Amino acid sequence: MSLPDLAGLSGRRVVLLLSGGLDSACVLALAHRAGARLFALTIDYNQRHRRELDAAAALARHHGVERHIVLPLDLRAFGGSALTADIAVPKGGVRPGIPVTYVPARNTIFLSVALGWAEAAGAADLAIGVNALDYSGYPDCRPDFIAAFEAMANLATKAGVEGAARIRVHTPLIDLSKAGIVTAAHAAGLDMGLTWSCYDPTPDGKHCGLCDSCRLRKKGFAEAGIPDPTVYAA
Amino acid sequence: MSLPDLAGLSGRRVVLLLSGGLDSACVLALAHRAGARLFALTIDYNQRHRRELDAAAALARHHGVERHIVLPLDLRAFGGSALTADIAVPKGGVRPGIPVTYVPARNTIFLSVALGWAEAAGAADLAIGVNALDYSGYPDCRPDFIAAFEAMANLATKAGVEGAARIRVHTPLIDLSKAGIVTAAHAAGLDMGLTWSCYDPTPDGKHCGLCDSCRLRKKGFAEAGIPDPTVYAA
Repeated sequence: MSLPDLAGLSGRRVVLLLSGGLDSACVLALAHRAGARLFALTIDYNQRHRRELDAAAALARHHGVERHIVLPLDLRAFGGSALTADIAVPKGGVRPGIPVTYVPARNTIFLSVALGWAEAAGAADLAIGVNALDYSGYPDCRPDFIAAFEAMANLATKAGVEGAARIRVHTPLIDLSKAGIVTAAHAAGLDMGLTWSCYDPTPDGKHCGLCDSCRLRKKGFAEAGIPDPTVYAA
Repeated sequence: MSLPDLAGLSGRRVVLLLSGGLDSACVLALAHRAGARLFALTIDYNQRHRRELDAAAALARHHGVERHIVLPLDLRAFGGSALTADIAVPKGGVRPGIPVTYVPARNTIFLSVALGWAEAAGAADLAIGVNALDYSGYPDCRPDFIAAFEAMANLATKAGVEGAARIRVHTPLIDLSKAGIVTAAHAAGLDMGLTWSCYDPTPDGKHCGLCDSCRLRKKGFAEAGIPDPTVYAA
C-alpha cells in the first residue's frame, strides 16, 4: 500500500478540520510530518460525543499546530441527526444507506468555515479526513462532493476574482480503507490513544464498541494488524 | 420593470437567509406574499452592525415567519473584514474591486447552515437576497457562485443519494438594481423602516449615511422615487 503524500504542503499554511477522530488526526499527523504550517479548526456543534473536543485539543498540542480554533456552532438548533437530537445511536452494525448519525450538511458547513478562515489567513489549502471506502455512507464524504465544493470555493472567494491562489481541498484518505488509515497514521507517528471515535460514550468515558464508528475503528486496527489502544465497553 | 415572482413557492417550506437588511427583507416580503412557509435564518456572526439583528427579529415577526433561528457563529474568531475585525469601514464612496467590508466566505457559510436546516426540516428551497448589479463587489453575490453552490448542495446531501427533492437556491433579486429592489419591496408591502443597512451605525443609532451600504440604499430610494424612511447622520 502506498501511503498518502502531502509533501507539496511543506511550508504552506493549511486549514485542517480536526474533529478529534482517527481520520482527521491521521491527516493532522501526515500534514505535520510534511512540514505544513497547521491551522486546525474544530467545530463545537453541540455534538452528543463532546468527548472528541478534548481529543482534538490534545492532538493539536501534540502535533505542532500553529493555531487551533474551537468554534461553537450549535447544530442542535435544528437537529435532524442522532448526534444532534434525541434520536438513539444505532448499535446493530453498519448497514447500507444513510444512517441517522448523518448530520445534515455537516461537512459543507465545516468546510465553509474553514474556507473563511483560510481566506482571512492567506491560506489556499484546506484538508479534511473524509474517506469513501470503510465509511458510514454519508453523502458529504464522497469525491464528487469534494470536487464540487472546491469548484464552488473558487467562485465564492477572492480566488475567483482577484487572481489569488486557487483554493485546494486535500483529502489524503479518500481512497483508503480504515486499515489503510490506521497504517498511515501509525507510520506518521500518530499516538492513536489520543483520538476519539465513539458516537455514544459510556458514562464512565469508554468507547461503546457497538456504534458504527466504533465498529469501523475496531475493524481498522484488526485488519491493519496494529495493536488497538482503545478501551471498549463492548 | 417586471417584479420577481416566487409563486412557485406557495405552500412550500423555504429556508431564507434574513440579515435584517433591505435585500433579504425584500425576499422575505416576496416569499411571504407568494404563500411560502417561511423558515428564517439569521446568523449572529459578531458583526460590527449588530443593530441589524434587531431588524431581522422585527421583520420575522411582521412577515408570518413560521420559525426564526438566530444562530451565533463568531466570525471574529478569524476576522479578515472591516465587519469582523478592527479595520475601519470606508466612507469615501463605492469603488471598483473587493472592499474591506467583504467577509471571507460569508455567503458560503450562511448558505451551508441554511442547507443543513433545510435538510433537517424537509425543505428543498433556499432563498437569499444577493444581487450583482448595485452591490459591493463581493464574489459570493455573483450568479456563477450561486449556481456552483446549488450544484454542490445536491451532492452534499441526501438529495444526491436517496432521490430526495433537488435543492434549489432562489435569488429573486439577482438581476435587480437597488432601485428595482426598493420598488419590489414596496410593491410586496414591506415596511422599509423595519430594515437596517448601515455597516457602521452612529452611537445614537442612526445610519451613518456614508458607508457603501448606506450609499447604495440612498441611491435605491432616490432612483425608485419612493420616500426613504431612513434617518441618516450624513
